[in-house]
Amino acid sequence: MVFEKHIFICINQRPPESPKDCCGDDGMAVRIAFVQELAKRGLKNSVRANKAGCLDVCSLGPSVVIYPAGIWYKRVTPEDVPEIVETSIIGDGTVTRLQLSNAEFESRK
Amino acid sequence: MVFEKHIFICINQRPPESPKDCCGDDGMAVRIAFVQELAKRGLKNSVRANKAGCLDVCSLGPSVVIYPAGIWYKRVTPEDVPEIVETSIIGDGTVTRLQLSNAEFESRK
Repeated sequence: MVFEKHIFICINQRPPESPKDCCGDDGMAVRIAFVQELAKRGLKNSVRANKAGCLDVCSLGPSVVIYPAGIWYKRVTPEDVPEIVETSIIGDGTVTRLQLSNAEFESRK
Repeated sequence: MVFEKHIFICINQRPPESPKDCCGDDGMAVRIAFVQELAKRGLKNSVRANKAGCLDVCSLGPSVVIYPAGIWYKRVTPEDVPEIVETSIIGDGTVTRLQLSNAEFESRK
């Protein structure tokens, strides 16, 4: 595995007139928080916080997915990032209050 | 798992004066080929061909990674896409001629 864990953060930006929400600038802020937290913990060579295009859960963004585990998070803020890193990157758990459920995914807009 | 398989294709665009290569427009063409191939095979609800920012293997692009398996591909062209879908999306194998090795990753630029 090239990276032990690979975090994808949606930073998709839609035009203001779009009927759909987008992660955009809020996603960028979340991504910066991940980059900083990984650097602080000495993980930047083994874990990557990657920009992603639309992850297709626009109404529940900013959205994040962590592979290879396939853990999906919704409405992530920069303040949530240390807890996510502690739980899902250092550990193999899930921050349940932020977890995107399959039912939410199925009813997404 | 929200998607059964999740393909990330680097479309990062660097300015012309950058000393690093980038996947950019070639990555975009590869992404379009994936979207079309998935649609053709009726897989567009279960597999996503996602735009990604820089995947950190700039000298070996366009680069692609498929999760949850964590299969990395280098120098992918649109012509390679049907074989990748057949092998790594329909099947669980690897197109070895395109595989990015750990050694190549370690010596990337």
